[in-house]
Amino acid sequence: MKNLKEIKIAIDTMGSDLGPLSVINGAFLFSKKIPKVKFIFFGDKKKIFPLLKEKKFFNISEIVHTEQVITNDIKPIDALRKFKKSSMFKAIESVKLGISNAVVSGGNTGALMVISTVLMKTINGINRPAIACMFPTKQSETIMLDLGANVECDLKNILDFAFMGKVFSNTVLGIKKPKIGLLNVGSEILKGNSMVQRAAKTLRKEKNIHFYGFIEGNDIPMGLVDVVVTDGFTGNIALKTAEGTSELYTHYLKKSFKNNLYSKFAFIISLPVLKTLRNRVDPFKYNGAMFLGLNGIVVKSHGRSNSDGFSNAISIAYDLCINKFNEKIISNMKKIFK
Amino acid sequence: MKNLKEIKIAIDTMGSDLGPLSVINGAFLFSKKIPKVKFIFFGDKKKIFPLLKEKKFFNISEIVHTEQVITNDIKPIDALRKFKKSSMFKAIESVKLGISNAVVSGGNTGALMVISTVLMKTINGINRPAIACMFPTKQSETIMLDLGANVECDLKNILDFAFMGKVFSNTVLGIKKPKIGLLNVGSEILKGNSMVQRAAKTLRKEKNIHFYGFIEGNDIPMGLVDVVVTDGFTGNIALKTAEGTSELYTHYLKKSFKNNLYSKFAFIISLPVLKTLRNRVDPFKYNGAMFLGLNGIVVKSHGRSNSDGFSNAISIAYDLCINKFNEKIISNMKKIFK
Repeated sequence: MKNLKEIKIAIDTMGSDLGPLSVINGAFLFSKKIPKVKFIFFGDKKKIFPLLKEKKFFNISEIVHTEQVITNDIKPIDALRKFKKSSMFKAIESVKLGISNAVVSGGNTGALMVISTVLMKTINGINRPAIACMFPTKQSETIMLDLGANVECDLKNILDFAFMGKVFSNTVLGIKKPKIGLLNVGSEILKGNSMVQRAAKTLRKEKNIHFYGFIEGNDIPMGLVDVVVTDGFTGNIALKTAEGTSELYTHYLKKSFKNNLYSKFAFIISLPVLKTLRNRVDPFKYNGAMFLGLNGIVVKSHGRSNSDGFSNAISIAYDLCINKFNEKIISNMKKIFK
Repeated sequence: MKNLKEIKIAIDTMGSDLGPLSVINGAFLFSKKIPKVKFIFFGDKKKIFPLLKEKKFFNISEIVHTEQVITNDIKPIDALRKFKKSSMFKAIESVKLGISNAVVSGGNTGALMVISTVLMKTINGINRPAIACMFPTKQSETIMLDLGANVECDLKNILDFAFMGKVFSNTVLGIKKPKIGLLNVGSEILKGNSMVQRAAKTLRKEKNIHFYGFIEGNDIPMGLVDVVVTDGFTGNIALKTAEGTSELYTHYLKKSFKNNLYSKFAFIISLPVLKTLRNRVDPFKYNGAMFLGLNGIVVKSHGRSNSDGFSNAISIAYDLCINKFNEKIISNMKKIFK
């Protein structure tokens, strides 16, 4: 991996549903906060060059021209075999080759997962990578994993997720002894299916983990634990249901303020308040899902994320780099399996 | 079952976390809307009698005195064996014996499930009962099941849920050809674990079901389908995560309006609007989970539900009665297995 004194991030410029503009604007926004980070934009030079020129963005960025684009309808396995010259493949490869420290893409999740896993391999001791993200809570935020990388998990996968969540919470969020919760249908010790029962039994004995116990769906936004561990099937559905519920609430809120003449007046008065609220609930604020457990840093941005969101996804990649997240997972794995 | 011209509902008066008052007030609220329904209040006569007297509520209600109470810490199997003289057991038994048409309880869910299943048995053709509830959507609402009765499901269970959801949507909600969606991590045909894959394969061939296909968590509140089918583990977690997210949003909303002097002023102006909003998002409005697939009508109210919520749970029981939901499921099952 590249020397951390000079961090370089590979950008899959063709991966966003909104086109290269939102991606490049996202990188530009990020560079206003942290100017020393460099970028390699993988994609169509004809589209990227004018955008970089407009922003006078050449001092910290370069372009690697690619012609293939992996769209969302392409099967991961086909992406791996037939799209070796795509912006996504080349961006991931640049991390594998040590040219970049991390890759950020808003493209096809399955393809990103498969290509990253095949090129980078999982960290020694970790069987399967996991997708993780931050979930907003009453206190601050909690890390939740897996969110869909593994729709069928065995016991070892669940334990790996707990472990990776712990190291993330330690190193990136600075929580010394993060509370690890296992998502279940009830908090009582006898609740749940055989998988969570077996996982809890093992986690209770694990000295390196501060296992809180079972938590329920409504405990996640309350911030009961620092790390929420679940299989990828349940995690994906829980996260998306939460996103949909937040959208429904916003819909109700707007509808209530449009109800009659008085409510429209109240809406105008409340505009600054609603703006504050929007910043709090905006899912883009939490944009960026991390692929944990790979020998390299991969961050997935929402495909339809705007430039603010893409900038946030880059921040996550940057945080994982400067906190030497992967090195710490590797050294912690060695401690456990010594 | 009793003649439907005179509907009688058995009430587990001791099952609410808030005590008998909220339960009896709930029944009273309901009787103001539909006065012809009768009630049997199972529980401590000394507590119930003064409350009924105060409301002059005797003309349509009677008391069956019981001394045992099944609290939330009692294991379902113990509840079944050792609490045969409890308010919950006796209330369920009165449906089994044909004295009442339905039972409503805010008590221990596991106990309610086990006692109901043992006393009433499942409907011929249905292997396992399911817990169902209404989920609010942008359009109106959708029925979702299972919500935790079965944390491990086989293929037959999932198909039963689809079928019961369809009949509910038909008979109670009046939707002629309800769209049935199977909850998954993606809408593409190849997504998901082996269980949803096998279930979708069967549902696609099923002529009696209008199978929409896979839906994702965020599709539920958007109202993409009329019936959301899922295993009890995922369904329970998705529903509770949605409840928690709604609570978090309310928390953010309150916080934004308390931010400074101006926002406090805007709050006062917006009070009527926020009240409308509250009615829209208040989970109590949707209180009442139905146990479907039993030879008898059982509705579970939230334990901490207020009288409005309890009244709503009674409405659900009443709807299931007058729509002859169980008779229709039975006749539909016969059609399918003819």
